[in-house]
Amino acid sequence: MVLFERLVILGVGLMGGSLALAAKKAGVVTTVVGWSRRESTLQTALDNKVIDVAEKDLSAALKGADCVVVATPTILAESIMIQVLEQVPESVIVTDVASVKGNIARALTQRFARVPSNVVLAHPIAGSEQSGVAAAKVDLYQDHRVILTKETNTDADALQKVQQLWSAVGAEVFEMSTAEHDHILALTSHLPHLLAYTLVAQLSADRQSSDVFKFAAGGLRDFTRIASSDPRMWQEILLANKDQVRQSIKDFAQQLSKLDQLLEAGNADKLEQVFTAVKSSRDDFAKELAARKKH
Amino acid sequence: MVLFERLVILGVGLMGGSLALAAKKAGVVTTVVGWSRRESTLQTALDNKVIDVAEKDLSAALKGADCVVVATPTILAESIMIQVLEQVPESVIVTDVASVKGNIARALTQRFARVPSNVVLAHPIAGSEQSGVAAAKVDLYQDHRVILTKETNTDADALQKVQQLWSAVGAEVFEMSTAEHDHILALTSHLPHLLAYTLVAQLSADRQSSDVFKFAAGGLRDFTRIASSDPRMWQEILLANKDQVRQSIKDFAQQLSKLDQLLEAGNADKLEQVFTAVKSSRDDFAKELAARKKH
Repeated sequence: MVLFERLVILGVGLMGGSLALAAKKAGVVTTVVGWSRRESTLQTALDNKVIDVAEKDLSAALKGADCVVVATPTILAESIMIQVLEQVPESVIVTDVASVKGNIARALTQRFARVPSNVVLAHPIAGSEQSGVAAAKVDLYQDHRVILTKETNTDADALQKVQQLWSAVGAEVFEMSTAEHDHILALTSHLPHLLAYTLVAQLSADRQSSDVFKFAAGGLRDFTRIASSDPRMWQEILLANKDQVRQSIKDFAQQLSKLDQLLEAGNADKLEQVFTAVKSSRDDFAKELAARKKH
Repeated sequence: MVLFERLVILGVGLMGGSLALAAKKAGVVTTVVGWSRRESTLQTALDNKVIDVAEKDLSAALKGADCVVVATPTILAESIMIQVLEQVPESVIVTDVASVKGNIARALTQRFARVPSNVVLAHPIAGSEQSGVAAAKVDLYQDHRVILTKETNTDADALQKVQQLWSAVGAEVFEMSTAEHDHILALTSHLPHLLAYTLVAQLSADRQSSDVFKFAAGGLRDFTRIASSDPRMWQEILLANKDQVRQSIKDFAQQLSKLDQLLEAGNADKLEQVFTAVKSSRDDFAKELAARKKH
């Protein structure tokens, strides 16, 4: 079933490119138009058959669209989405793939008094340490979760079509408020990235830093894997979700201080009790995640 | 070349059992004697040919030994090593496999005025989320690093023989002071474990904790893998290295606070600069670790 005759992807990178590939394969779009400010990106996208039509001009790209996906870096998402909404009629569905939702909702509210009814903000929880259109893959979203953040005035038909698009590419779709989304993502993704960056910065700054890394092993490698993520992307995400991230830092510091007090007091029993509860939560999470991937 | 006629392993678990298997395979020991307080452990060790002789009585186990390896849980290592040193002549080499060295060196110094010259403290940086003699494997130490902590009075021959034992089982041997060891391990292993425990405790305590884990993905799984480690073992290790761990917590909190200030100030450039340096350090570390494993 064709959902969209003309799907326009703004920013043809890993996320947008993978959505284009998957939507075409699923047969839910007729034509995919790609827009990028970089000529070379558009050429690669055409060469790899990620998009059908390339446009360097935003207005030209938007012409005849029935769905527009803003898939630019986080820092551009707000302004690009405003530009799109200023140009397309209300009948065109406008959505995105950004990791933070509150900043976009606030920017739209500031410009249009509220989030327009044809906007369905979306966050597919998927990614890779690689980026760019060359890394796009047809199954990036398979068995992954996508969160849609619904406003009271969101058009029911727009919401349903965006749901169908994500289901068609193999994702499981959930709905929640932007605040809830940004809180959960701060805890499960943004804070862990910041903690990994912090630890590696601490280790690098240590007076024995060359020996520090020399004697580190697999535990540290896995713990710091996310510190190898793209520095610009993560600076943008953390700043876009600044308030929630800073609250999560505060809560983390308090939790760490509690455990430090147990260490100071030599309270072996209580420490073991905390670690045992933690191990149980983490084992359950790992099991649930493994089951999710097997679908 | 036989290094030891009678190698005595006190505590036949993952670490001690794997050393026994590897030393026998390498042909550097004639007879391995295993001691454990649990009958079932000794039976499994005999059944799996991890040890040649089982002893439930410590004095009987020590009889005729030329090398004694204390491989008990961390919390028992100090007292067991003191008991051993009270019973064996100075010609017997006494070593261990514990993750923390300073606490043992302090306990020995308190009892014997200094670390006896026949003691060579050792820490093989290897392990597994599994534990117990049934998890013992012959190649656990292959391509791993072992740190020996030498005192000024350490017997040169004892040091050399312990070096040869670890080299024979495929490990790369390094020497440093106990203080340096405990500082480096606090940073690369003990602190990361505590941070992973802290984050999972925070997530579990969150008002939306069921949703928190529901929307977490591979990044969080890898970041928290070490929070699935054995709660008792880690409580013991963290308390054994309490001073260094608490100092590393303090340094971490300061580093986190610096990054929090950059977030508060919205300093995108400086954040990106820190993350870029971190990514470079972490990428180098991951590359070096991969090269180490390929040997």
